[in-house]
Amino acid sequence: MDFAGLSAFPITPADAAGRVDTENLARLVDRLMVARVDSIGLLGSTGTYAYLAREERRRAVAAAAEALGGAVPLLVGVGALRTDGARALARDAAEAGADALLLAPVSYTPLTDAEVFEHFRTVAEATDLPLCIYNNPSTTHFTFGAELIARLAEVPGIAAVKMPAPAGDIAADVAKLRAAVPEGFAIGYSGDWVCAEALLAGADTWFSVVGGLLPEVALRLTRAAQAGDAAETRRLDARLAPLWALFRAHGGLRVMVAGAQLMGLTAHAAPRPILPLGPEATRAVAEALEQVRGIA
Amino acid sequence: MDFAGLSAFPITPADAAGRVDTENLARLVDRLMVARVDSIGLLGSTGTYAYLAREERRRAVAAAAEALGGAVPLLVGVGALRTDGARALARDAAEAGADALLLAPVSYTPLTDAEVFEHFRTVAEATDLPLCIYNNPSTTHFTFGAELIARLAEVPGIAAVKMPAPAGDIAADVAKLRAAVPEGFAIGYSGDWVCAEALLAGADTWFSVVGGLLPEVALRLTRAAQAGDAAETRRLDARLAPLWALFRAHGGLRVMVAGAQLMGLTAHAAPRPILPLGPEATRAVAEALEQVRGIA
Repeated sequence: MDFAGLSAFPITPADAAGRVDTENLARLVDRLMVARVDSIGLLGSTGTYAYLAREERRRAVAAAAEALGGAVPLLVGVGALRTDGARALARDAAEAGADALLLAPVSYTPLTDAEVFEHFRTVAEATDLPLCIYNNPSTTHFTFGAELIARLAEVPGIAAVKMPAPAGDIAADVAKLRAAVPEGFAIGYSGDWVCAEALLAGADTWFSVVGGLLPEVALRLTRAAQAGDAAETRRLDARLAPLWALFRAHGGLRVMVAGAQLMGLTAHAAPRPILPLGPEATRAVAEALEQVRGIA
Repeated sequence: MDFAGLSAFPITPADAAGRVDTENLARLVDRLMVARVDSIGLLGSTGTYAYLAREERRRAVAAAAEALGGAVPLLVGVGALRTDGARALARDAAEAGADALLLAPVSYTPLTDAEVFEHFRTVAEATDLPLCIYNNPSTTHFTFGAELIARLAEVPGIAAVKMPAPAGDIAADVAKLRAAVPEGFAIGYSGDWVCAEALLAGADTWFSVVGGLLPEVALRLTRAAQAGDAAETRRLDARLAPLWALFRAHGGLRVMVAGAQLMGLTAHAAPRPILPLGPEATRAVAEALEQVRGIA
């Protein structure tokens, strides 16, 4: 897979005990396939991979792979605190039908650059699948510098990076990273609120939370940006602004679970200790979704 | 148990696959018992609880409880990402012989105060054991305000707090917290480099990393502070300063594993991705330990 375009990240429906509802997951994945997203990012942060046991993660990958039947590339999060744990998850994902791996440097004891390099090298060699570096400081508490990404980009199998929203200018961030990595190494962004500008600045991929729930509008935005239509890209981005504000206030996971419930796509909640949004925030999510529907 | 005095936190020896070496652990715990520490903090951050599977954590508690035979109170870390997981660990620990629980708000998705409150309330009611709040922002990425600690202190079973080194004045931190919590609620500190001053300022407990490896000197310091002998407390603290500098530079876990290896107390390494210290840092650990031995 080449990682380009819209990579849509669905939630992973599971019961209160952490058992994945594979039928519900298959329906969510099927919606994304029908919308023709470029890839699906299963078991990302919004897909609560960190909260699911190894066997449940294997079941989720198998269910998604079966639902897709190879029609859309499947990128699977294999992050774990232990290196041997992440290697085992990588092999499980490969066997269950993943097309690529997404690896975050999940930490408890803060990690050094040398530790993260070795962790990634070791997990990358566990399978033949391409691996995307998941740079997500707000959850992993490790920040990749451009120099470390450049070193990892030389490791066989490490083919892409998923970047967070930068503190500064997004176009400068894309340019700095592009200059640091080899040709053909894919650069993508998450933090949906910066992704329209990231794509316009030449990023390859939008690793999209909203794309996991509202694939049509995310695809329209992606295609407009890929065609260089800045006005249409920004028009769509502006309509999504109320959702971006909610993501930043409450985190993507809480908002996406509320949105999926409001749209009748799931009855499951996020895993405790994460609590459902209160009535006021839930109403704001409903209004933001309504505004997006108004685009069509 | 009343949590007062020196709570010594040993490493948890385990093989590369994460299997706890219960014989090695029993020997480490026995050393602490012989030294007559006030309590033992098993499966703290330095005890790599976050990296060990539920069954291994249960084995570790059972081995430590058997080695102690009730002679020293056993405080056990039961932190987990999921609330149901932490409840299960709490019940396991109680059944395997723990005297108290230590609960950190381990996070992936950043948690709100309401989520942490509910998580703690729910875990506290899972057993009859007293529970200590483990406030460790550098690993959990959640910081307890005094107001939240005060609310939790009203929950039945929540009996103590383990605080990190504050950014500002330690005596002011102790005083602020003391004013916020009910009488009898124990206030203790970790971040070994502030703990001499914390005890002198009236903190009840030193939750000590170094105490897990060098219980004699940690006890001498604790007893001097409890007796109000500031000069002797500070003299001992100064002799430990090279170790404090290493803790701050490399993290307590990496330094304690190197120290235990240098002292012939274990042959096991920390779990990957955590790497052993390099030769230069290891030499510095050896020198710091030598300086501490010179105290005796």
